[in-house]
Amino acid sequence: MAAELKLPIAAVTMATAALAALALGSHPHHGTLRAQPGHTARFDYKTRYFEQKVDHFGFAEDSTFKQRYLIGDRYWNQDGGPILFYTGNEGDITWFCNNTGFMWDVSKELGAMLVFAEHRYYGESMPFGKKSFSNPKYLNYFTSEQALADFAVLIRSLKQTIPGAQNSPVIAIGGSYGGMLAAWFRMKYPNIVVGALAASAPIWQFEDLTPCGVFYTIVTNDFLKSGKGCVESIRNSWDAINNLSSRAEDLTFLSRTFNLCSPLQASDVASFKSWLSETWVSLAMVDYPYKANFLQPLPAWPIEVVCTFLQDPSLSAEALLKNIFQAVNIYYNYTGNAECLNISQTATSNLDDQGWYYQTCTEMVMPSCTDGVNDMFESVPWDFQVFSDNCKKDWGLRPRPDWITTVYGGKNISSHSNIVFSNGGLDPWAGGGVTKSISDTLIAISIPEGAHHLDLRSSNAKDPSSVRKARALEVKYIKKWIEEAKIEPVIR
Amino acid sequence: MAAELKLPIAAVTMATAALAALALGSHPHHGTLRAQPGHTARFDYKTRYFEQKVDHFGFAEDSTFKQRYLIGDRYWNQDGGPILFYTGNEGDITWFCNNTGFMWDVSKELGAMLVFAEHRYYGESMPFGKKSFSNPKYLNYFTSEQALADFAVLIRSLKQTIPGAQNSPVIAIGGSYGGMLAAWFRMKYPNIVVGALAASAPIWQFEDLTPCGVFYTIVTNDFLKSGKGCVESIRNSWDAINNLSSRAEDLTFLSRTFNLCSPLQASDVASFKSWLSETWVSLAMVDYPYKANFLQPLPAWPIEVVCTFLQDPSLSAEALLKNIFQAVNIYYNYTGNAECLNISQTATSNLDDQGWYYQTCTEMVMPSCTDGVNDMFESVPWDFQVFSDNCKKDWGLRPRPDWITTVYGGKNISSHSNIVFSNGGLDPWAGGGVTKSISDTLIAISIPEGAHHLDLRSSNAKDPSSVRKARALEVKYIKKWIEEAKIEPVIR
Repeated sequence: MAAELKLPIAAVTMATAALAALALGSHPHHGTLRAQPGHTARFDYKTRYFEQKVDHFGFAEDSTFKQRYLIGDRYWNQDGGPILFYTGNEGDITWFCNNTGFMWDVSKELGAMLVFAEHRYYGESMPFGKKSFSNPKYLNYFTSEQALADFAVLIRSLKQTIPGAQNSPVIAIGGSYGGMLAAWFRMKYPNIVVGALAASAPIWQFEDLTPCGVFYTIVTNDFLKSGKGCVESIRNSWDAINNLSSRAEDLTFLSRTFNLCSPLQASDVASFKSWLSETWVSLAMVDYPYKANFLQPLPAWPIEVVCTFLQDPSLSAEALLKNIFQAVNIYYNYTGNAECLNISQTATSNLDDQGWYYQTCTEMVMPSCTDGVNDMFESVPWDFQVFSDNCKKDWGLRPRPDWITTVYGGKNISSHSNIVFSNGGLDPWAGGGVTKSISDTLIAISIPEGAHHLDLRSSNAKDPSSVRKARALEVKYIKKWIEEAKIEPVIR
Repeated sequence: MAAELKLPIAAVTMATAALAALALGSHPHHGTLRAQPGHTARFDYKTRYFEQKVDHFGFAEDSTFKQRYLIGDRYWNQDGGPILFYTGNEGDITWFCNNTGFMWDVSKELGAMLVFAEHRYYGESMPFGKKSFSNPKYLNYFTSEQALADFAVLIRSLKQTIPGAQNSPVIAIGGSYGGMLAAWFRMKYPNIVVGALAASAPIWQFEDLTPCGVFYTIVTNDFLKSGKGCVESIRNSWDAINNLSSRAEDLTFLSRTFNLCSPLQASDVASFKSWLSETWVSLAMVDYPYKANFLQPLPAWPIEVVCTFLQDPSLSAEALLKNIFQAVNIYYNYTGNAECLNISQTATSNLDDQGWYYQTCTEMVMPSCTDGVNDMFESVPWDFQVFSDNCKKDWGLRPRPDWITTVYGGKNISSHSNIVFSNGGLDPWAGGGVTKSISDTLIAISIPEGAHHLDLRSSNAKDPSSVRKARALEVKYIKKWIEEAKIEPVIR
């Protein structure tokens, strides 16, 4: 999920700050695959394109576009073996493919075909090519409903055209926004998928279903448990910055202390603080138990490492901020290769960021707020009007915050079935997730030591037992759905 | 459901012939309400308008329109009593309201509020006013998905604004296309409605889910059991017409024999035969056990009356056709007020017909065929290409015959719950309906003596016991859904 730093208004940035991190990593050139030596051979997929309708919900626009999808069928049992279908989210699908090792890990045991479908308006799957973002009328088909329809039509076609796949049960799998899509896909198209694994899917981060402050409270708790003085140091840093941002020499001090690529201007201070906030959020999302490169190359348990620099919150403003820099520098320069830090680095001009910002300005309004008491951030209440005004300014439209809960059911989802919701105890997105089982077939799995969809990553020797157990349970449910589908085969 | 007689191509007319009948009756000026003396006082509703978004699935078109709905709350228990919600279909909602006596009959017992919501692009609910049918771009929002979204948004608003309705469980009810909408509404929005009564809803009359000939076979069976010689007489009538349509004097004979308002031309003969076919179909749909005025004022068991004229199939062509006229005249002139018969009478230029034709040319492609062996009609195979070409010619677009089964599940609907499908044994639409229970909560109710959604009509002293039992069972399920909702209340 992506942030929009073009808007230096705190309320907006807060709302989308946490979304920044994921999209960041979604740049194919980040080379995430290359950062996983030994996996390359396993992740052998073919790239395919499917002629997809631009508009599934109207007949005036009859054009088509090429939706990209990836197929890995090395272990597929061609006699009706299952299909694990990744419901692509806000980024290049190859990146999701290469960061969802879980699917590759279980494909042999399940005799499963893997399909990773790219979400429209991301990666190469542009409904109007390079013009797609140039005009509101081209963006009009950029909704979650259209994306789900793409998935449904694609799966139906695959089953009709791949010999042996006609009776294959299909399981939807996704993480983050992709997890939301996986869950919603099962809810809306139970004829197409027999079950869904929705990892770290904050389907209740809408309207008032979840208190707006939960997200940042979880971020704060991650830091609280990772080192003494850490949260207080960060909490104190905001005033330190505010007190050191009026005079030119203060700005120079900040620029030098944080090794910024561009000298800080007075008008940049809000963005600077947002950038810091997003850094803490990103760290919470990728607080993995082993050295990894999801959003950035990072050490194991990166927050603990960060907090070693932040043990004394009572230092002077200058001393405190020097420590904050050391902490932030772990995130942006763990490899030591960065010559300077760029406060616009968490937001880029590529389509992924643009795309998610459009989605937050239409359907995906996820209220977020801080109070500085239950969290370590400056107090920023949720202000829908400001958020909406910015959307109007930037896209010429206003969000519809109550549509998602109307169309996908909000908390009234108990009549659905065969969805596993997994959430990590360290993941700020768990606050808006389904963390208690709703029925025998709507299962919540908790991974106390897990950050953002740790369970979808490749198994690792340093995995805590909770994520191992979670994956085993997920496989158990997937097998159960497959078995049930055999008894009651899917007709189309 | 409406036919399109503008297209004299038999395959097309056959496909939509049966659809003609319903829309016919949906003209408000037919005065159906007035034909039900004594009911007027019971059917006391208030007319309301709801500001509805033109496009629920995109953000570029942000205009709104006024959706009409009717509310009857005389017996409503204001402390969370249930709402029976009629999912309006292809016509003026007041007509459906006044022809769904079942809802009025049970409202007191259930303490229920009645809401009848008009389907967009019908009656007064025109998204672009009088321009709505003037341009393909205005028609672009004319889909079942948009209609369901209208219903969902309307219900959510009613529950938020009507004091005492916040926790009211809502049950969807509809007949024919409205029954399809009721079933689909429960499938897609189980958060909004706790259950659905789908009367005479041919949700499987798509693609190859049902053999295309079933519809006309049922029509034929209705005539078969209603009088000796009846089916053979009708079957023989086609050749009789064909043999009497080449010479001018033959056409004059036909015009005079059938008391036609306009003299028949050679080019009208196909339309003439379609008109006759549609008459037999309409009779099958409204073969009610008592004198009624649904599509036309008719005697009890009208097919039996019609068949009294058709006992001898071995007559000469001329004699046979004179009898056919007597039969048809029952349908068009039971009151004796018609001065002549008009073969374009089953299709009119009003928006109802236009509307349904548009829907059949987009989503609602319901294959239909005859073979002259299993049915009493001329043989007309299903020809999708011809059908599609006509849609292209008339609307500038082509149907998408596989979309409905993708989005609404085709036969794979077993994971859904709380839907009662009722079907009449005499109703040709039962062929594409759900006539066997799928699970404990997807229930099929059969009414052997019932024509098209007889169960939704007001109770009548002449009702066969099967429809009485069906209604009792329907009420039982509705009560069960209401009770279950109390245990697990609907949050929004």
